[in-house]
Amino acid sequence: MGIKITGTGSYIPSYIEKNENFYNHQFLNADGSTIKNSNEVIVEKFKAITGIRERRYVTQDLSNSDIASFAAEKAIEDAKIDRETIDYIIVAHNYGDVLHNSEQSDTVPSIASRVKHLLKIKNPKCVGYDLLFGCPGWIEGVIQAKAFIASGIAKRCLVIGSETLSRVIDKHDRDSMIYSDGAGAAIIEQSDIEGGILAHESATFAFDEAHYIFFGETNDKQSKDKRRYIKMYGRKIYEFALSNVPKALKSCLDKSGVAIKDVKKILIHQANEKMDEAIVNRFYKLHNMKMPDGIMPMTINMLGNSSVATVPTLFDMILKGQVENQEIHKGDVIIFASVGAGMNINAIVYQY
Amino acid sequence: MGIKITGTGSYIPSYIEKNENFYNHQFLNADGSTIKNSNEVIVEKFKAITGIRERRYVTQDLSNSDIASFAAEKAIEDAKIDRETIDYIIVAHNYGDVLHNSEQSDTVPSIASRVKHLLKIKNPKCVGYDLLFGCPGWIEGVIQAKAFIASGIAKRCLVIGSETLSRVIDKHDRDSMIYSDGAGAAIIEQSDIEGGILAHESATFAFDEAHYIFFGETNDKQSKDKRRYIKMYGRKIYEFALSNVPKALKSCLDKSGVAIKDVKKILIHQANEKMDEAIVNRFYKLHNMKMPDGIMPMTINMLGNSSVATVPTLFDMILKGQVENQEIHKGDVIIFASVGAGMNINAIVYQY
Repeated sequence: MGIKITGTGSYIPSYIEKNENFYNHQFLNADGSTIKNSNEVIVEKFKAITGIRERRYVTQDLSNSDIASFAAEKAIEDAKIDRETIDYIIVAHNYGDVLHNSEQSDTVPSIASRVKHLLKIKNPKCVGYDLLFGCPGWIEGVIQAKAFIASGIAKRCLVIGSETLSRVIDKHDRDSMIYSDGAGAAIIEQSDIEGGILAHESATFAFDEAHYIFFGETNDKQSKDKRRYIKMYGRKIYEFALSNVPKALKSCLDKSGVAIKDVKKILIHQANEKMDEAIVNRFYKLHNMKMPDGIMPMTINMLGNSSVATVPTLFDMILKGQVENQEIHKGDVIIFASVGAGMNINAIVYQY
Repeated sequence: MGIKITGTGSYIPSYIEKNENFYNHQFLNADGSTIKNSNEVIVEKFKAITGIRERRYVTQDLSNSDIASFAAEKAIEDAKIDRETIDYIIVAHNYGDVLHNSEQSDTVPSIASRVKHLLKIKNPKCVGYDLLFGCPGWIEGVIQAKAFIASGIAKRCLVIGSETLSRVIDKHDRDSMIYSDGAGAAIIEQSDIEGGILAHESATFAFDEAHYIFFGETNDKQSKDKRRYIKMYGRKIYEFALSNVPKALKSCLDKSGVAIKDVKKILIHQANEKMDEAIVNRFYKLHNMKMPDGIMPMTINMLGNSSVATVPTLFDMILKGQVENQEIHKGDVIIFASVGAGMNINAIVYQY
């Protein structure tokens, strides 16, 4: 028996925010001091490190639960299942619904309940809940679906990662250029065919690292704005990720029994291009290998970092032939991996 | 093998808000119109229906993650375990940390990460995540812990229900008198001894019911306050709960194979005394029985409705001899049950 992904879907918001759109922002350091470089230089440096040229934002009329339901509709269609047979709807997010021109996160009812309502699913035995686990939330949702299926509690789960980070960014913070909006979804189910989830790894580093990504005030210390925004200690995160993610990937691969040379793709959270490359490079170094060309498909240059949505969106886009020079074939072993707020790390070794 | 609760803890906030403290509130109907009765009459009617005489609020210096960690400390101590051996920290809540004098919910990092940090747990393999499932969140967390243990993913889980509803109430809404703050926690683990979780039931009704409990604006329509607060359609919820909770309880009991006469206690979410009584009455009516005296221990009169915290707090208080004329003995079969935002319903038949 395998536990397999039998359908995927994603929603790419229609509005494109280009790097040039940030040229007129007033960027400030975290302590409120001015930045010496011009915005053109700031943006170029940003692009060189993160790889991001543009990112997507939802239009004003849409909320996080709306786009979560759009991705879910596509995954249900792709899996060719009757939606009334879904046992769980697991929605990974971190900020709930933040309406346009509102600063409050709305999480009651849960986003899963809203999605279930929007999907018009009637069966009350289809249980919907929200999972907060930082950026690795979607992968963690797949791990939880595995637990429900393996323990006989469920047969079929819908796991969604959906976030509208455009609603929680401080425009005076250079890091605001990283974040974007998006939603990805997958149907996970019990299968007679071998393969699927071969191993998983999950970890929470909270002793020193809990507040590396946090909710904080604007960099504009002159402002009366008391609203809080997504904030991070980028350098600390970079060092943390480089120390811990490659080891977590290795531990997961070891558990799976798959040889490193048989790994066909690594679908890593689209956090930052240079950081992602450094992580995967180091993972191969742990196996005394050079990182193979094309092993790490990327969408960050066009889509930015949409938190929980990056991995399922990337997976869906590859399967649908929407990522240049990237394919996944039947039987291929791939690794899903993520790192983010918590600080949480996780990975799944998966045979397609 | 059984999956058992091996330790419990709770935190009862120190500040007591008595019914009399609401005498000077300006209560308004949902449409902003004035209420004809005096506040004394409003409060007396409220008390007659809900049973609530007073409720607890956290002091200004405390957040939801603080009180969650207080309850967790007690559960860890009660279970006499090494905290570094915990595999999962599952925190059920619905509004995250809402600081005093702030209106934003803070959920990044997750409350589970904050609790893990406060508990000073180092082991990164102890995975912390938050679960949003309305008031039934703590029971759902226990069901998820069961899935992790039954599937071999975990051996020992800490499940916390913690909420500070005092931070999201509209003082112009009579329903604000229902809500309170609190935290309850339990250690769930694999056990060689038979018993523990015998059966569970879980459901989400979202087709018509998703928005029965929601986030809405103040009843004071003259106000410039655009902040949103916890809101509910009380009558609809009452009818929904009465139609569906007794059936869910019966279904869960049927699955467990336990005879109704062998049920010693029903620990139901402390939502509203009259509603809770009507639910349990109807549950016994489904079995052609009269509801036995003392079957349904209540704390709502002194503690109000603290959402996810009511059931674990009630369980902990009974075990510690803090609920008058209520005891649970080794081997007793009890039922945990809840209903709330989503609309979600769940139940566990449990042998102590």
